[in-house]
Amino acid sequence: MVTLNEDYLKLPGSYLFSTIAKKVAAYQAEHKDADIIRLGIGDVTQPLPQAVIEALHKAVDEQGSAETFRGYAPDLGYSFLREAMAENDYRQRGCDIADDEIFISDGAKSDSANIQEIFGADCRIAVCDPVYPVYVDTNVMAGRAGDYDKDTETWSRVIYMPCVAENGFVPELPGETPDIIYLCYPNNPTGGAITKEQLQRFVDYANKNGAVIIYDAAYEAYISDPAVPHSIYECDGARTCAIELRSFSKNAGFTGLRLGATVIPRDLKAKTMKGETELHSLWARRHGTKYNGAPYIVQRAGEACYSEEGKKQIREIIDRYMKNAAYLLNGLKEAGYEVYGGVHSPYVWLKTPGNMTSWEFFDMLLDKAQVVGTPGSGFGPHGEHYFRLTAFGSYENSVRAIERIKAMKAVR
Amino acid sequence: MVTLNEDYLKLPGSYLFSTIAKKVAAYQAEHKDADIIRLGIGDVTQPLPQAVIEALHKAVDEQGSAETFRGYAPDLGYSFLREAMAENDYRQRGCDIADDEIFISDGAKSDSANIQEIFGADCRIAVCDPVYPVYVDTNVMAGRAGDYDKDTETWSRVIYMPCVAENGFVPELPGETPDIIYLCYPNNPTGGAITKEQLQRFVDYANKNGAVIIYDAAYEAYISDPAVPHSIYECDGARTCAIELRSFSKNAGFTGLRLGATVIPRDLKAKTMKGETELHSLWARRHGTKYNGAPYIVQRAGEACYSEEGKKQIREIIDRYMKNAAYLLNGLKEAGYEVYGGVHSPYVWLKTPGNMTSWEFFDMLLDKAQVVGTPGSGFGPHGEHYFRLTAFGSYENSVRAIERIKAMKAVR
Repeated sequence: MVTLNEDYLKLPGSYLFSTIAKKVAAYQAEHKDADIIRLGIGDVTQPLPQAVIEALHKAVDEQGSAETFRGYAPDLGYSFLREAMAENDYRQRGCDIADDEIFISDGAKSDSANIQEIFGADCRIAVCDPVYPVYVDTNVMAGRAGDYDKDTETWSRVIYMPCVAENGFVPELPGETPDIIYLCYPNNPTGGAITKEQLQRFVDYANKNGAVIIYDAAYEAYISDPAVPHSIYECDGARTCAIELRSFSKNAGFTGLRLGATVIPRDLKAKTMKGETELHSLWARRHGTKYNGAPYIVQRAGEACYSEEGKKQIREIIDRYMKNAAYLLNGLKEAGYEVYGGVHSPYVWLKTPGNMTSWEFFDMLLDKAQVVGTPGSGFGPHGEHYFRLTAFGSYENSVRAIERIKAMKAVR
Repeated sequence: MVTLNEDYLKLPGSYLFSTIAKKVAAYQAEHKDADIIRLGIGDVTQPLPQAVIEALHKAVDEQGSAETFRGYAPDLGYSFLREAMAENDYRQRGCDIADDEIFISDGAKSDSANIQEIFGADCRIAVCDPVYPVYVDTNVMAGRAGDYDKDTETWSRVIYMPCVAENGFVPELPGETPDIIYLCYPNNPTGGAITKEQLQRFVDYANKNGAVIIYDAAYEAYISDPAVPHSIYECDGARTCAIELRSFSKNAGFTGLRLGATVIPRDLKAKTMKGETELHSLWARRHGTKYNGAPYIVQRAGEACYSEEGKKQIREIIDRYMKNAAYLLNGLKEAGYEVYGGVHSPYVWLKTPGNMTSWEFFDMLLDKAQVVGTPGSGFGPHGEHYFRLTAFGSYENSVRAIERIKAMKAVR
C-alpha cells in the first residue's frame, strides 16, 4: 500500500502568495468596480529589454533550421552563458570564480528550493526571520525542520535569526550553531542591505564552524553603494563555505522567462563516508539526473544581458523601479509611516501603524485603499507588525498608491 | 558541521550518457578524422515545426511590450495549454481528464525525477529491467532503493521486472508487491509497445494492491496501431491508481525548449495521518513551493502543437523518424541481427551478436563502424547483450550507419 511524504502534510496552510491571491480575488468578486493596485507579489512589470528580445528572435530562428537546431543543452549550461556570468558577475569584481563553477538553471526559486537536497537529513538550518518562505518550506518537505508550533509559528529544528529595525535588519550570529545558513541580501522581504564587513563576519563564522552559507543574491543589481557587496565571494574565505544563487528575474525581467544560476566553488567540501567530498560534484549529479537544462533560446537571452546594449537597458529598467521605490519610501514617510528598505532594493518595508497585525493592515489597505501588499508576518514571526510594498508597479500606480494611503490616513 | 546526502554517494559511476560522451570524446581525440555517426542519445535532430517557431516569435514580441508582457506564470501552467492538452490528448480519446488535473512543467525528465518526492520514504518501487536510469537513480538519491550489489548490479529494495525478447518486452506482474510501479510505453529503451489488455492488467493489479503506477507516455506519438493505448487513462480504473507523464520532446522536438506535463487525477488518493489525501494536492504544493512555471513563450509554443498546422507538421517529423526506424530495423535484419522495437517507437533494440556484452559491442561499433549507440546494460542487468540505436539521426546517416554495420560484419 503506497504511503505519502508526511512531511508535506506538516506545512501549515498554503503558500503565502496563494493566500493573498485568494483574498484579493474574493474582494474583487464582491467589489466588481474596484481598481486594485497590486504592490504585493514581487513580480516585474517592465517588458524584456530590447537586446533580450532580439537575442530571443535570433535563437528562435536558429531552432527553426536543421543546420542550427540545438536539442538537449549541456547538463550544466551552455559555456557561452557560464563564461559571460563568470566574467561579468565575478572576475570583473575581483571574485575568483571559474566558468565551470556556475550551474545554469531555470531560476533562483528552483535552485533555492532544490539545493537542500544535497545536504544530510540531520542538518540544522538557520534562516533570517522574516524570510523568503521557500527556504524553510523546502526543508520542512525534506523532514529537516522538526515540528511546527502553532503558537510561536516556528519549527523546532530551525534556528531563527531575527531581523528587525533594532539591528538594521542584519542578524546577529546565531546562538545555536547551524549547519546551513540561508542569507539573502539585498534582502527579501525587508529591503535591507548588508555591508562587506557584516557579511565577512558570517563567512568567518561559517568557516570556523564548518557550516555552509547559501547566499541568495537575486537583488544584487539594486545595490547603489560600493560598501555593499554584490557577491559573497567578495569576502575572504567564501570559496570554502558559500554557495551563491543568482537570478535574471529582478534585473532583466526574466520572471516569466526563467533563468538563474547556482555557484559552487570547488573548494567547498564536506566530510562524508567516502572521505572529503566536493559539494560541486553532488550538485552536478543532481543537475545531470533530475534536470535537462534551461532552454537554449533562454540561455541566449541571458547572454544578451551582458552585451553593452543589454547592460544599458537593464540599468534603465532598474533606475525606473528605483524611482518608484524612492517615491514610495518618501510618500510613506510623509504619511507618517516608519519605513525601511527601498534604497538597495525594490522592496519597501513599513511598520504597521498603531501596532496593527500585518494581516489587519493588509485587510485595511485592500478595503480602504484598494492597494495590495504583502503581510510581513507571512515571512516569519519577526515580520509581524511589518508590511512589504514593491516598487515593481508602474510609476503612475506608485503615485496613486501613495495618494490613496495618504487619503486613507485622513479617513481613519 | 555540515553533512551531505550520503544517498547521493551510493550511486555507482556517472550517468550513462555522460560515460558514453566521454568514451566518444576520447575516441575522437585519438582519431581526429573519424566521421562518427551518433545514434546513441535519444535527442532529436529535426528543427522545431514552423507553427511552433511562429508561436515563439509572436510570444517573444508580446514579452517586449509593456501592454502584453507576462511575468510569473500561474504555478501549475497557463490555462490555454492545460485546456489544449486535456482536450486533444485526453477528452478526444475518451479519457476523462480535467484541465486542472494537468500540471505543466519543464519536461518529463524533471517530472519523472521529482515525482518520487511526494511518496513515503519507505515505499518500494518496481521498475522494468532494462529501464530509463532516472527512475531508479532519483529513488537512490532519496534513500528509497536500499543498497547496491555490484555483482548483480541491482538495488536491494528495488523490485525488477525483466523485459526481454521472451516476454515481448512487457513484464509479468511483479512477484513481490511494490508501492510504486514505473512503466514507460512505448518503451525506452527497448522500443516495445504494450496493448490495452496488457496495461489493463497492471491497472487492475495496482488498484487491488493500493499501488500507484507512474506511466511515462513520452513516446505515445509514435504509436501506429489502434490496439496500443496512447494514455493509461484509456484503461478502466486508471483514475484511482495512475499518474501520467507527457513530453513535447520526442514528438515536437522540444528537447532544447523544455516542456512537459504530469497528470494526476483527483481520484488518486492515499491514506495518511491526516486521513485520505489527494496526491494532486501534494504535487500542487510541490509545484507551488519549488517551481516557478514553464516560460510563457514555451507554453505558447506548446499550444501551437495542437493547431491544425502544428499537428500536421509534427506528423511529418514523426513520419520522417519512423522512416529511419524502418530502415534501421530492416537493415539490421538483413545484416543478420536479431532486432526489436522500431515500430511504435523511435528506438531499435538489437541483440548483440555472438553473446558479446553490450559495452563490448559499443566499443566494436565505435571502433569498426564509427557508429555510436547505447549499451543495453546501461539500462539495467536484463539489458545486457542488447543494444539501442535511435531513429533520430538523419535518413542519410541511418543509411550510412547500416552500410557500415553490414561492412563491419564482413570484416569480422
